[in-house]
Order: sequence, then structure tokens, then C-alpha cells
Amino acid sequence: MSLRFGFELLVRHPTGARLGRMTTAHGAVETPAFMPVGTHGAVKGMTPRELGELGATIVLANAYHLAQRPGVETVSALGGLHTLMGWDGPILTDSGGFQAMSLGTLVRVEDEGVHYRSHVDGRAGLLTPEAAIGIQETLGVDVAMALDECVPAAVPRSRVAQAVARTTAWAARGLAARSRSGTALFGIVQGGFDEALRTESASAITALGFDGYGVGGVSVGEPAAETARVAAATVRALPADRPRYLMGVGTPGDLIRFVAMGYDLFDCVLPTRNGRNGTLFTRQGKVMIRNAAHARDARPVEDGCPCYTCRRFSRGALRHLVLSGEMLGARLATLHNLHFYLHLMREIRAALAERTFPQRAAAAAGAWV
Amino acid sequence: MSLRFGFELLVRHPTGARLGRMTTAHGAVETPAFMPVGTHGAVKGMTPRELGELGATIVLANAYHLAQRPGVETVSALGGLHTLMGWDGPILTDSGGFQAMSLGTLVRVEDEGVHYRSHVDGRAGLLTPEAAIGIQETLGVDVAMALDECVPAAVPRSRVAQAVARTTAWAARGLAARSRSGTALFGIVQGGFDEALRTESASAITALGFDGYGVGGVSVGEPAAETARVAAATVRALPADRPRYLMGVGTPGDLIRFVAMGYDLFDCVLPTRNGRNGTLFTRQGKVMIRNAAHARDARPVEDGCPCYTCRRFSRGALRHLVLSGEMLGARLATLHNLHFYLHLMREIRAALAERTFPQRAAAAAGAWV
Repeated sequence: MSLRFGFELLVRHPTGARLGRMTTAHGAVETPAFMPVGTHGAVKGMTPRELGELGATIVLANAYHLAQRPGVETVSALGGLHTLMGWDGPILTDSGGFQAMSLGTLVRVEDEGVHYRSHVDGRAGLLTPEAAIGIQETLGVDVAMALDECVPAAVPRSRVAQAVARTTAWAARGLAARSRSGTALFGIVQGGFDEALRTESASAITALGFDGYGVGGVSVGEPAAETARVAAATVRALPADRPRYLMGVGTPGDLIRFVAMGYDLFDCVLPTRNGRNGTLFTRQGKVMIRNAAHARDARPVEDGCPCYTCRRFSRGALRHLVLSGEMLGARLATLHNLHFYLHLMREIRAALAERTFPQRAAAAAGAWV
Repeated sequence: MSLRFGFELLVRHPTGARLGRMTTAHGAVETPAFMPVGTHGAVKGMTPRELGELGATIVLANAYHLAQRPGVETVSALGGLHTLMGWDGPILTDSGGFQAMSLGTLVRVEDEGVHYRSHVDGRAGLLTPEAAIGIQETLGVDVAMALDECVPAAVPRSRVAQAVARTTAWAARGLAARSRSGTALFGIVQGGFDEALRTESASAITALGFDGYGVGGVSVGEPAAETARVAAATVRALPADRPRYLMGVGTPGDLIRFVAMGYDLFDCVLPTRNGRNGTLFTRQGKVMIRNAAHARDARPVEDGCPCYTCRRFSRGALRHLVLSGEMLGARLATLHNLHFYLHLMREIRAALAERTFPQRAAAAAGAWV
């Protein structure tokens, strides 16, 4: 628990892609890495044992949600977030900026912080940048995110500029509020889809000096080309010696594309949410397991896939479980999808290590690139 | 797959309890045994790997439900029920008699069989005693149950007598319809809560000669003392050299009580359904994990329990997962409850083997006896 946070670059690829190692209080993370999403303290349907077997090395949770339920003091009384989740490895938490946007009318953002009405019990509260740090430190996470203001894709430039200024001010207040050396702190760059605002935000946030940098305000409903454009503009303004986290991204193709730009960390609900809905990732593209075409298909979801789902269940069996509303169907689909994502990340890292990026990675992604 | 069905008695205890071994086409089952319930082809939330690790040796499914969805021909096209479920061990299916009762207005029972309207797609159908055998043979199960007529606890004696007569006639028709030697067939004794009718039913069914005998029409809403009374009256009328299956029973205390009477096989939704509802079995009794008292309780559900849930998660963590509606909460609670049941059965068998029944078994059940 006494390890200092660190980040080491092992390979720099001509594309801009990097192979690295991020060291945290709960162990090392080889990057580029994908973080399965465990918003409420659990990656939906998965045990920590399964996550480890799948090759996850770091998981994401959400400090805002956990502060609402079960509450920070409860998590603390139970031994901290690692104990609550039964996960010994690194944990990164988002602080609540994205939730402040996505919860809509339940929140009102002002300079002092985010006024919210809890979606759990209706209580009113105020999340300040200082409180966001305090909450994450008390949860005992390895990487905390500064509180940011995230705006939807289609807002006027003046509104984006206001969010950039507020995010910078909040980042400085968050930094000043730190009290625990075991919790690394990442700043978040905002700026919507305006490259000048992105550059301005990146300059201001990096000037403050964080352990790493998140790029927020993407994956908010914009076209893929827009994401790529601002991600490219932003990454140039980030220091090379710190981990770069592209928040909420993305599809398997996105992962390769943004690794190539120089991003190191990713999170996305796609593998878990799609799994629960019966949409599976394969090298041939999406498999919608509910489709009647799979009813009597005795093949696995993906031929040759070594995941438990594919070794043990046919497409027809999985379809039956999903259509019957059996919890096992959602589990098995989630397991396969996380295997697909985490295997892809292993292939990306192997490709960088052996200098065959992006070819080897593209082979693992198949139709997704 | 070529093994003949068999049943061997290893120890007969003065109470009437028996230690035995049932041999099926997919392996042996040490009895007394508890069969986790996988009505639709999955024990809710559990993988076959987990069931094996928990010590399950045989699982239950429901032929009526599977015939509705995904359909017998689909199961067959996918390689049979074992392949569909991903379970290599023995499978016993109930034929649909209990469902004909519990589905209420969707069915009309006549001498020729059960006229039903499918709860899945609304189609009308007729389940005859012959079809019930054919379905189970096509599913490829190890133990099939004859179609019976099950009546609720509070019906007039004449109605129970009619169900007994029909169940006998259907049993004979089922026997005559057998075509596959790999599928054992159990007859079912009915008779409600009238000891004379129970004895009459047992005489008639055993005279037909089955591989084993189910006692149905219990666990239909009657007081526990009534279950015990008719179970005791019925078991005396069953041959000693065949397995005896008390259908739908029961609590941990019931298991010990009915093992002591000479029953060998049990199934019950309690460990799985209660798990999903947040009610956990411990030697100290029920733990209602939703209760506020557990919010900051860092102890496991049961001290010293070696199950994954108790080794990895606190009561407070499990409460949080259950209250948050996280699938993992239902999974972990189900896992613990099945561990409790299957551990209890191991202790029952060990107690019979070392002649310390019921003491050693009672210690495992704790407050439940």
C-alpha cells in the first residue's frame, strides 16, 4: 500500500502509441489498458475472480454513485472500496462530473460545485471539487479524478468555454485539497469539439501538474469523426511522460485508433451493457444473439474463442438463456465481451512490444477496424 | 453414456435413513442428494463450473418449460439438454404435473392429458403421459418423471382420489411409452394429505415397477406437520431398494428430517430464490441481508464459511450489492445458499457413513433443526 504512483514508458511507437507501466498503491497496470466499468462497486454480473481470470488489471468505479449509496462512511467502515468490491488490484474512480451532466434536471452546476438531488434518496447535496477529492481519498482508490464540468455535444461555444474555465478552477481547488499520498490524482481536459478550447484546457490543466490526464467530454453523443478530431488535437497538448486516459471510449476499433494516437487508458460500458442486451463482440462483428438465426446454431459465439462461454455454450443455448431472462445469459455474454476487450488489449500491448502494431492488434479486432 | 441405471444401498441407519449410490448414464450420485433447480435449463445465476465446485452432482430441470422454450427439437438440434446446459453430470426432469397445477387457468386436466395454453407464446397444446416420456427421452435426461396430476392442499377428498386414479393410469401409459434405455423413469405417488389415498397410490405406482419413486403433492402450501405426516405414511409403502425422491422439499431442517425417514433425493427453490431475494442461510438461521443492521457489518455472511462469497465479501458489501440491484449480489447470495445446502448434504452423507447421523448433520444445520 506504500508504493508511490508512477508511470514508465517502455516503447514509443512511430504512430504515437506507447507501451507503458503505471504503478499504483495496489499494483502495476500494463498500458494501454481497458478498465471494466463497475459504477456502483461491481462490474455488472462479474466476480473479482472472473475479472482477474479475464486479465483485467484495473477497474473503474464512480465516486458520486458510491457516495450516494452505500455512502462514503459506510464504505470506510467496511474497510474501503477495495474490500467492498473484493478487488485487490488498482481502482480508478470518476468523481461525478459526467454524472452531473447525465443526471440532467437533478443537478445544477455553479462555481462552488455541483448542487444535486440524490437519485437514490432524494436528499439535496453539494459536491465541491474539494469534497470530490475527499470522497475518493476516503474510498481509498488508487487513482482519483478531479471534478470537472462536462457538457453535452450540442451546446454553444460560450457554454463550453465556461465549462473549461470552471474545470480549470475546480482542478486547482482539487489539487489543493489533496491529503493522501497513496491516491494519485488525474486532471481532466474539457473543451467540447472546439480544438482551440481543447488546447486551452489542456494547457491550463497540465500547467497545474497532475499524476495523469483524463480527456473528458467525449462519448457524449457526437459522431465518431468528431471524437477522433478532438482527441487528436488534445493529445498533442498532453505531456508524454504521464498516462493519458480517454474517458468513456470505446468500440474495439476505437481502442486501436486511440492507442495509435497515444492514449493509454480507456473505459466503456459497451462490453458489459451490450452483453446484458444480448449483443456480443466477435472478430466478425456484432452477434445479436436474440436473432432467430441463432436458435439451432450449435457453434460457439466465436469459433476458437477460449473464454468460458465459448468453450461451454452454443449460440443456441446462449440465445435460450437470454430470451428466457436467465441471469446466466447476461453473465455469459458479459464474460465473452470482456474477454474480447481484454484479449484485444493484450494483443495491442504484445504488438507494441514486438513492434507489430497495429497489424497484430488489428487481427484481434477483425471487422472492428 | 451406456451405463444402466442403478441404485445401491451402502448404509441403512436405524432411523430409516439410507446412504446410497444412484448410477445414471452421466455418472453416479451419492445419496441423500439435493438437486439444485434449473427449471429453464440454468440454475439461476450459476454456471455449471460453479455448481461442480459447490459439490452438486445432479441438477433438476423442467421438461414442460423446456418444451415451451426453446422447444424439444431445438434442444435436440443443439445436442441435447446436457449440452444446452453445459452440464456433464446427471439431470433429472420433472414432467410438468406440478406446473399444470401452478399455472392455474392456463391448463385443463382431462383423462387424456393436460390441455394447456403456453405461457410463452399462447399456443394451445396437449401434454399426454406418452408425450411427457417422449419429451424427456428426446431431451436426453438421465432420470425422467412420469406425468402426474398434482392437486393443491385444500381440495375435497374425492378430487384427490380422482387425481390418484389419473396419476396411476398416466404412470402405466408412461411406462408403456418408454423407448430409450438410457433414461430412467420414476413414478410419482400422489394422494394429498389423506394417508389411505397415499398408501393406495403408492401400492398402485410401485406395482407398475419404476426405477425410482417420487412423492409429489407436498410443498403445495400445507403446514410442515402435514408434510411430515404424509411423507412418513408414504415412505412405508415404497420399496427399500429404489431411490425415493421427496419433490419440492425443503428447508435445511426438512432435509435432515426426511433423510431420517428414508428419502434419498430432494429439490427445492429455497436456496436459489431466497438468495435472489437477499435471504441467506446460516447455521444461526436466516440472515435478511437487506436489513439496515448489516450496513456496516464487515463480517462475512457466516463466520468460517469457506464459500467464495464469505471469503471475499462482507455482509455490508453484499447488502450494498443487493440493494443496488446488482446482479452480482444475487449471484453471491445464491452461491452461499447453495453452498449451505450442498455442504449440509455432504455432512448428512458423512454422518451416515461414520454412523454419527443425525448429530453431525444437525451440527451443520444449526438453528434449522
